Amino acid sequence: MAENVGLSFLQDYAVKTDPLFEKYLHQKIEQAQEISKIPGELLRRFLEMGRKGKKIRGALTVLGYQAVGGRDLEAIFDASLFLELFHAGVLVHDDIMDQDDLRRGLPTLHVQFAEVGTALHVHPNPSHYGYSMAVNAGDAAFYLSWEKLMQSHFDPDRLIDVGQIYADYVIRVVHGQVLDITDSSMGSITQEDVMKVRQYKTVEYTGVLPLLVGAAFAGPVSKPLHDAIQQYGNALGWAFQIQDDLLGIFGDTDTMGKPTGSDIREGKQTLLVLHVMEHGNKDQKAFLRHVLGNQSITPAEIDQTLELFKQTGAYDVVIKRGWDYVKQGADVIPHITSDAKIQEILNGLINYMMERVK
Amino acid sequence: MAENVGLSFLQDYAVKTDPLFEKYLHQKIEQAQEISKIPGELLRRFLEMGRKGKKIRGALTVLGYQAVGGRDLEAIFDASLFLELFHAGVLVHDDIMDQDDLRRGLPTLHVQFAEVGTALHVHPNPSHYGYSMAVNAGDAAFYLSWEKLMQSHFDPDRLIDVGQIYADYVIRVVHGQVLDITDSSMGSITQEDVMKVRQYKTVEYTGVLPLLVGAAFAGPVSKPLHDAIQQYGNALGWAFQIQDDLLGIFGDTDTMGKPTGSDIREGKQTLLVLHVMEHGNKDQKAFLRHVLGNQSITPAEIDQTLELFKQTGAYDVVIKRGWDYVKQGADVIPHITSDAKIQEILNGLINYMMERVK
Repeated sequence: MAENVGLSFLQDYAVKTDPLFEKYLHQKIEQAQEISKIPGELLRRFLEMGRKGKKIRGALTVLGYQAVGGRDLEAIFDASLFLELFHAGVLVHDDIMDQDDLRRGLPTLHVQFAEVGTALHVHPNPSHYGYSMAVNAGDAAFYLSWEKLMQSHFDPDRLIDVGQIYADYVIRVVHGQVLDITDSSMGSITQEDVMKVRQYKTVEYTGVLPLLVGAAFAGPVSKPLHDAIQQYGNALGWAFQIQDDLLGIFGDTDTMGKPTGSDIREGKQTLLVLHVMEHGNKDQKAFLRHVLGNQSITPAEIDQTLELFKQTGAYDVVIKRGWDYVKQGADVIPHITSDAKIQEILNGLINYMMERVK
Repeated sequence: MAENVGLSFLQDYAVKTDPLFEKYLHQKIEQAQEISKIPGELLRRFLEMGRKGKKIRGALTVLGYQAVGGRDLEAIFDASLFLELFHAGVLVHDDIMDQDDLRRGLPTLHVQFAEVGTALHVHPNPSHYGYSMAVNAGDAAFYLSWEKLMQSHFDPDRLIDVGQIYADYVIRVVHGQVLDITDSSMGSITQEDVMKVRQYKTVEYTGVLPLLVGAAFAGPVSKPLHDAIQQYGNALGWAFQIQDDLLGIFGDTDTMGKPTGSDIREGKQTLLVLHVMEHGNKDQKAFLRHVLGNQSITPAEIDQTLELFKQTGAYDVVIKRGWDYVKQGADVIPHITSDAKIQEILNGLINYMMERVK
């Protein structure tokens, strides 16, 4: 058994829902194949990618449900898949925009279908075919997600509540993504924008949305309870995002499923980068500007960048901020639930956000 | 007043809903701008494109509602926008995949944002930025569509019914699109596949889905009524698709908002093409293979292709098929409603599908 009860909760969620996720998608693959082989193949590869997720958002949905007293565990485990389906889909679209080659240790879907395109002799170019297929995979995932939600075993008024929260937050995720790709592409970005992108694209989406929809599945949520969940979710989301920034730079290639330093090569404006740009000396800033978003960066330069983040104190400061969020979130827990067991899981989980190595 | 009551119905729908569509999207643009200027700009351009639609699907939603006795016209006009939002979004994704430059007389969204990208000096390339922004525009549209639906003034159980039908049909639209881009890209395609692509991507989506969701807004639908709506919708969808194939080749550039022959250049496998491939002589088939999907086709060759479709009888045969569907659909109308006024609109509308010039 894992030592952290939050991690145990995540692992237990995966054990319970992996077969449900597989079964659901296998049905959908069969339906797609009735139309033709290729839509089935697209969903098959989407499933292969989707089954490798961390499933944090689905697990938080279940936890949000239990935290406000929800009791129908069978129904909530099944319903929570809707968010995992969305997540797998939005990553496929993200990978298109970031032109990433690798996700969860596999070639990204657009790369896989560029290869399929080459084998099938598609024209005008296999790369565009790969991107197009990936656009379709994401679109299908979004509607599978809604279908899953609409078919869930909860009262219609609960599903409408959940649907409203879901739509509302995802629209903001897309706005965050729009800001992100514009700023990143321009190579100039303000601290405020970096924080906004993280707030909408990750923090609210990963931390707040799943807990709020989980609670909404159980019943109407009072304003004070809603606010407490939001505060905890926000803190958890920031802890998650900060560790993501750290792992994207310092994470192990094999564990992460993508090369160390890929966030440097992509020019990702992380909190580490912001710290150096604010507190670093002229040479340090010049070096960082040189390596950020530089596709032809050498392994030695990646090592130097890692070293730079440590030397300037960026690494320590960012880690401390992450743990500050963990404390902030933990302080709110008594306002969410008085159930000692759920409190322990909420506490374990927010700690795990900073403890995790992938 | 237009002579065809179906056309009048469409025009009336546009007059009543254009202000609702504008107002709704203006609110959404404001919310996006609170995050940042650029997500607001993306929605602003999306609205500019979306307001130019034919709005057939929204109108059919209202008609489906009225046909089964629905009475809350204010609520259904407002709710029907959800499908128009989806439609505007899915066209943006379609244009990416087809690499189309023009839509409704405007540069397509990815072309517009490639220009924005050039002006903003984005890297690695403005074209990829344009595509990425267009992916986001579609994604936002899908979730705006669901938000609109979830916020509609109908009982929750009605919205869940509508949501299930909506998700179910859109998933098949995506499968159809996957089949379409794969087959078109490979330049080899069976008659069966052409028919399937049309069935899922257009016929069911344009004809059946809106009428079925419209009816579902009003209340649970009996099996015989469901089947009658489906048959009428299917016939209407095919009439629409056939006229689309005809207009894509023979349509006027200014009226259509895209160049005559663009469907030839794109290599679209229309019913016209199928007819020639089945009934044409060796030279005719060779010529068609030469021009189809040929990006460097000359205006003279486009004229020759138009002539070919007339000579081989393809044009006449396809037109006849369209009118056969009109008759088929008209015959089902008495099984949908006994209301003489609604019958007249249903009849006018299916005729209009073949009469329309854009």
